[in-house]
Amino acid sequence: MSTPTSTQIRLARRPVGEPADSDFTTETVGLPELGDGDVLLRTIYLSLDPYMRGRMSDAKSYAAPVEIGAVMEGATVCEVVESRAESRPVGTFVLAYTGWQTHAVVPGRHTRRLDPATAPISTSVGVLGMPGFTAYAGLLQIGRPQEGETVVVAAAAGPVGSAVGQIARAKGARAVGIAGGPEKVRLLREEFGFDEALDHRSPDFAAELKAATPDGVDVYFENVAGTVGEAVMRRMNTYGRIPVCGLVADYNATEARDGAEPGPVLLRRILTKSLTVRGFIQDEFLADHSADFQRDMSGWVADGTVKYREDVVDGLENALEAFRGLLTGRNVGKLLVQVSEDPTR
Amino acid sequence: MSTPTSTQIRLARRPVGEPADSDFTTETVGLPELGDGDVLLRTIYLSLDPYMRGRMSDAKSYAAPVEIGAVMEGATVCEVVESRAESRPVGTFVLAYTGWQTHAVVPGRHTRRLDPATAPISTSVGVLGMPGFTAYAGLLQIGRPQEGETVVVAAAAGPVGSAVGQIARAKGARAVGIAGGPEKVRLLREEFGFDEALDHRSPDFAAELKAATPDGVDVYFENVAGTVGEAVMRRMNTYGRIPVCGLVADYNATEARDGAEPGPVLLRRILTKSLTVRGFIQDEFLADHSADFQRDMSGWVADGTVKYREDVVDGLENALEAFRGLLTGRNVGKLLVQVSEDPTR
Repeated sequence: MSTPTSTQIRLARRPVGEPADSDFTTETVGLPELGDGDVLLRTIYLSLDPYMRGRMSDAKSYAAPVEIGAVMEGATVCEVVESRAESRPVGTFVLAYTGWQTHAVVPGRHTRRLDPATAPISTSVGVLGMPGFTAYAGLLQIGRPQEGETVVVAAAAGPVGSAVGQIARAKGARAVGIAGGPEKVRLLREEFGFDEALDHRSPDFAAELKAATPDGVDVYFENVAGTVGEAVMRRMNTYGRIPVCGLVADYNATEARDGAEPGPVLLRRILTKSLTVRGFIQDEFLADHSADFQRDMSGWVADGTVKYREDVVDGLENALEAFRGLLTGRNVGKLLVQVSEDPTR
Repeated sequence: MSTPTSTQIRLARRPVGEPADSDFTTETVGLPELGDGDVLLRTIYLSLDPYMRGRMSDAKSYAAPVEIGAVMEGATVCEVVESRAESRPVGTFVLAYTGWQTHAVVPGRHTRRLDPATAPISTSVGVLGMPGFTAYAGLLQIGRPQEGETVVVAAAAGPVGSAVGQIARAKGARAVGIAGGPEKVRLLREEFGFDEALDHRSPDFAAELKAATPDGVDVYFENVAGTVGEAVMRRMNTYGRIPVCGLVADYNATEARDGAEPGPVLLRRILTKSLTVRGFIQDEFLADHSADFQRDMSGWVADGTVKYREDVVDGLENALEAFRGLLTGRNVGKLLVQVSEDPTR
């Protein structure tokens, strides 16, 4: 067997604002020999997720940034193509964290086996993976929607938002989804079954939001922030809950948005409405809730309670452009880069 | 008996910024005859509290504003001087909500009897009343300090802040108090037993705060906001808790402070540190926790675990100037207006 190589996208410098092509380099390098327990992986899907913008930056965050010169991080769905790990024979499909590259050598125990007979392997980075668990844990552990309450989520056509809305409905709450553009709004209503779907680009957005939430908002699942988040916060009911799992609209921001509400305004809302605002990273809930999640979410996907959608972009060379689109809402559904063929489809 | 009269301070118009003398009128009016069950009260103490600034304004809040022309609201400690209520004979001391006036006629059942033998009657609006309960419920139900954790509170020489610090210490946490000026800072250390006491007027405040919280901050009891609040938020540890019961520094604000951090900065802190920020009004906890509070706090006051201090201003005519001082931190301890003689002292 010839020495395996990997084509890799590496961080060349820290982007200012929107990540530019020149912030990255693409290199093809030889991979190391497999040690005992190692596997050689071929990347099938690379998951693109908003948190990656934070990893490109060295601002303080909950995780260390990607080093300059290092391969961009990311979750991947891979096939084992060479193995020195008994539990991961050649042909096994695994969930790994090998990043923006075509191949990688990692210890087999750093991967999780996937069974294509149970669910499509791509769902392990989507509805049955981190985005689905973010929705499940944040909504149920922090948002705690009660029957008849109103739950609002933005980026509602995305993998987290669409799951939030559908889980809210499964729990008897009213789900109001916000997305950008008529195609997504239609999808929210027709595919994901939201009770109300709003286009945040509408010039009458604030009035439409008010009409769609006649009883106010009890749970706002905050995953975008920006002007949409501020509009929803104005509708919060007393004792409302705001799980905060992302602030995509502000991720590229290098300074405060024009017209962004000052912190004192937010605090005043929190005080006068006795709101609970709680930031979280899904990891926090893994130990206690991942078994429940796998059971509930697999069941809901199987019986159609929760539907999901994927937006698959072809070729690693298109990953960066797709990632830029993710931050501005161009994708519809879970964004994946198809790095090589999926033999299970 | 001659028809009783009351001298009243009434809201003449809504203050813009700091309340001015011209925003109020003083009138002496005849009071109605007592109906069955009514009592005529003589005000001994009027409690001055920061929430009153909100009641002067018609901005949306958790309570309706005082109507223009109406007597300013407020809790009072009174003596019954005439009675048609069997359970409130003449000479009874009561907690009432009769506002900024010398006398009032109210139903006896709208008052709470006070026993001067148990505790000084003035404590019913201080350490054993709403401010003490605000500290107790907010700190223990939302802040939930654990042994060895660091609790920070500002306005720490005030009735809420001083109780927060002392309760935190009673629960085994480290208490860091912030106040304005050397006299208060000395009081925090020597009278209230804070582990660290800081003067927010110090030019090196941020550095001193950092030195005083070497392990970061686990609980920030937010009762002032402003630049002090923003400095403390920068020190929060992962999973920190921020009970929000007041924003005194911003109460007079008609527009955002210069340099006030934008909401997106606050949300980013909440996200990256998995913080819980929870607004509350003490009423919310009354049903479940007031019995525990009366038991615990009376015990702590009796055995010296919790000390309190009162700042008594003489004469209803000085109430407004004293209230302005409250919003800028001139008082030391619980601010009371002595409206008439306290026969129990």
